[in-house]
Amino acid sequence: MHTDDAQPAPVHSTDPRTGASRGPVAVEAGADAVDTAVRAAAATLPALADRTRRAEFLRAAADRLDAAADGITATADAETALGTARLTGELARTTYQLRAFADQLAEGSHLGLVIDHADPALGRPDLRRMKLPLGVVAVFSASNFPLAFSVAGGDTASALAAGCPVVVKAHPDHPATGELTARLVREAATAVGLPADVLRLVHGFEAGPALVRHPLTAAVGFTGSVRGGRALYDMAAARPRPIPFHGELGSLNPVVVTERAAATRAEEIGAGLAGSFTLGNGQFCVKPGLVLVPAAEPGVEKAVVAAAAQAPAAPMLDPRMREAYLEGVRERAAHPGVEVLLAGGAEAVEGAPLAVRAGILAVAAGELAEPLLEECFGPVTVLVRYRDAAELESVLARLDGNLTATVQLAADERGPEAAALLQRLVPLAGRLVVDGWPTGVAVAPAMQHGGPYPATTSTSTSVGATAIERWLRPVSYQNTPQALLPPELHDANPLGLPRLVDGRREA
Amino acid sequence: MHTDDAQPAPVHSTDPRTGASRGPVAVEAGADAVDTAVRAAAATLPALADRTRRAEFLRAAADRLDAAADGITATADAETALGTARLTGELARTTYQLRAFADQLAEGSHLGLVIDHADPALGRPDLRRMKLPLGVVAVFSASNFPLAFSVAGGDTASALAAGCPVVVKAHPDHPATGELTARLVREAATAVGLPADVLRLVHGFEAGPALVRHPLTAAVGFTGSVRGGRALYDMAAARPRPIPFHGELGSLNPVVVTERAAATRAEEIGAGLAGSFTLGNGQFCVKPGLVLVPAAEPGVEKAVVAAAAQAPAAPMLDPRMREAYLEGVRERAAHPGVEVLLAGGAEAVEGAPLAVRAGILAVAAGELAEPLLEECFGPVTVLVRYRDAAELESVLARLDGNLTATVQLAADERGPEAAALLQRLVPLAGRLVVDGWPTGVAVAPAMQHGGPYPATTSTSTSVGATAIERWLRPVSYQNTPQALLPPELHDANPLGLPRLVDGRREA
Repeated sequence: MHTDDAQPAPVHSTDPRTGASRGPVAVEAGADAVDTAVRAAAATLPALADRTRRAEFLRAAADRLDAAADGITATADAETALGTARLTGELARTTYQLRAFADQLAEGSHLGLVIDHADPALGRPDLRRMKLPLGVVAVFSASNFPLAFSVAGGDTASALAAGCPVVVKAHPDHPATGELTARLVREAATAVGLPADVLRLVHGFEAGPALVRHPLTAAVGFTGSVRGGRALYDMAAARPRPIPFHGELGSLNPVVVTERAAATRAEEIGAGLAGSFTLGNGQFCVKPGLVLVPAAEPGVEKAVVAAAAQAPAAPMLDPRMREAYLEGVRERAAHPGVEVLLAGGAEAVEGAPLAVRAGILAVAAGELAEPLLEECFGPVTVLVRYRDAAELESVLARLDGNLTATVQLAADERGPEAAALLQRLVPLAGRLVVDGWPTGVAVAPAMQHGGPYPATTSTSTSVGATAIERWLRPVSYQNTPQALLPPELHDANPLGLPRLVDGRREA
Repeated sequence: MHTDDAQPAPVHSTDPRTGASRGPVAVEAGADAVDTAVRAAAATLPALADRTRRAEFLRAAADRLDAAADGITATADAETALGTARLTGELARTTYQLRAFADQLAEGSHLGLVIDHADPALGRPDLRRMKLPLGVVAVFSASNFPLAFSVAGGDTASALAAGCPVVVKAHPDHPATGELTARLVREAATAVGLPADVLRLVHGFEAGPALVRHPLTAAVGFTGSVRGGRALYDMAAARPRPIPFHGELGSLNPVVVTERAAATRAEEIGAGLAGSFTLGNGQFCVKPGLVLVPAAEPGVEKAVVAAAAQAPAAPMLDPRMREAYLEGVRERAAHPGVEVLLAGGAEAVEGAPLAVRAGILAVAAGELAEPLLEECFGPVTVLVRYRDAAELESVLARLDGNLTATVQLAADERGPEAAALLQRLVPLAGRLVVDGWPTGVAVAPAMQHGGPYPATTSTSTSVGATAIERWLRPVSYQNTPQALLPPELHDANPLGLPRLVDGRREA
């Protein structure tokens, strides 16, 4: 029997609370199935060219997801144990994003319209520029956001908004949620007269590389680990025709607490930190994983330990992550100089025999070993005690790129020293947070969710209006008669789209 | 004797008309010299943060280059044989670009300023986004533009405008021009109070990879060949911390002549094509290298041969290119089915014993061998005769990405068929030209000089105002007191910068 004739492997859905499996809910895709999916998606590119239709589609998808909220959150909770409250919020975020991109399509600034009429004096022809979709976008679902960063999440919403068909690689932690979401989005497509194949879903480990290497794949959106993301990034770069790879890989999200902040706001900072690093059981890419605290002011340490000790044990997304978390805490705790302030470990609780507790480690800046500078997924954070500005700088100088960097200041620290500290953090991150916490990534035009490598493999954001820019490329039309131009570039501007015409803003 | 102690190899300047060398005009940089240059440049990043100062600097550099025009064009002509007229025009383009980016700095839209005030109802914090420089940019000079795409060319001008220090790898075809240009730009820097090291120049083959691999290099701008560009792109992607590589590698720049265009505008099209493919001795990245002509209408063929036969023989930029051109034409002519309409060959002319003549090859669409679809640098173009729409499509389907694609229509071809033909070319190129020629790349906001791979390794443009976007990354400030924000993001907007505030355009 040839392997070609083998039955595709079944995909099961597993409850992280109990380890119980059900299914199969889908089958794994080999290279052939991926090829079929990408070709089917690519064939919908012309149908997606209608911007009004796309906006309708995004709204219809949001409506259908909202209408199916109970089923979606129940399905996702059974696969992720994230809880109904969190998943209800995540679904609201997901449908908000879809509608925000529909609004963006009507507004039109993402088209980057520029018109320069011919200028014979400068020897310049008539030039008109706009942005067009790149082609099929491959989206990799994230383990930790079964809705907002998965099948109908930000990468998919922004790619569809851009006019790009999408093939999603489902995450094995929530295949049933993926299937349900995909079905609803595909139904929304046909309901507005678009082909269902504007979105395709594939499962299985082998599907990932096959998607990235497919000749018709034009760009990739990825959220996941440094190891997996870098391997796929390398594949995208090594293609005969390389493609953009927008990957969010890993981030420590450092926090700096000044001495005066610790002296004046210890309780507030400790409680805030505990809430932030244990939120979602520490399974956020923006979890504060390294906190620089002044050695002279132990108040923050005490407060965060007291607050985090109250956090209930909770299951992690899957057994592999659970083991990685427990092993990660163990390994870090074993380094010379590391003090265990709160032991993160396994703990069976009612209905969740596979739960874990939050952990807090502390170490002097001078004893900070390299592995403590690596992200550890789950509810653990590392407090690094610095004695002076030189020790603080010595730690900052060792940090890689991050999604966020946070500074906790005293109420009266608003002068040049505080400004210099904030400025020092700018090269380390894409988002700077003052007196707040990095968890909670607002969907807003001013959001930047992306930072220097390994936080992100490009300079883009995966959250907020400008995320659409990742899936577009500019094209200029030279000396082109009105009748042959796209309507967006006609001299008349009936839709009132924002354009730069001969150097002046129009609308 | 250690290799460390070896004298750096001298760099000579060679006259392509005669092959005569003079110098040394510089020395080659090994890894150590590149390290020194990159570190020196990186140290100027804080000084470049002042946007007003940067604009002053760009204008001062333009003024100094203009003032030294005679010396620069003479030096460049002696190294490139491009002629004083062309080089005078290229210098004007170069200084125009520098001043255009200075204007851009004052206008400020490149900063991408967005402010979203806190919205407690949405649970949204105050977020403020702006774009910041990436860091040191490595720029590779192009062989064929000793001024406009070299030391003070578009990549350098846009990177400096973005606030990025620049280390330029000089092109071995014009090292003396590079040295002279760099000296003037560095003098302009010190004249406005900036460190001279905002621009550093390095020479030698080894310097290229060392620059791309240097840990402090944050991005690369490249214009050159597919082979060299791809090797450097691969290095940039393989770094522990990958960096953006904006490379312009190669382009055939296809032209489609419709049957009715050939029937009604044969003389005009033939003359235009001859002018375009022989301009600059065919040493342009936008040279039309493949022209689809209707087999049924031979008028264009006759006209282009008649016009190109009049083009004077001229020297190529260097002996290696000259040999590659002569060999390239020979090889292509030897393919079955290829008809030599004009033999491109070597021809000694007065004062230029190493000159070459223009060549024109023709082949039926059905006999088009793969090597004829590869770019051949120099004054040669390939006419491909198509008999019907299916043959035309069969050729278009074989094309890679291009900087440009051109269509020649009859005056009355403005209907759906012409629109469909233009639409068919869009996936193939970054700039679509109607009834004109791709040579001549206007420096204008609506320009897109960049297309699908291998034309460009990213979706960016290297010409025009938006070229600055390549060297910036967005950063968001969350919940940051006014006193700690950059002035561009203060609530007051004294400079009148264009911003999107709570969804509305300001200024």
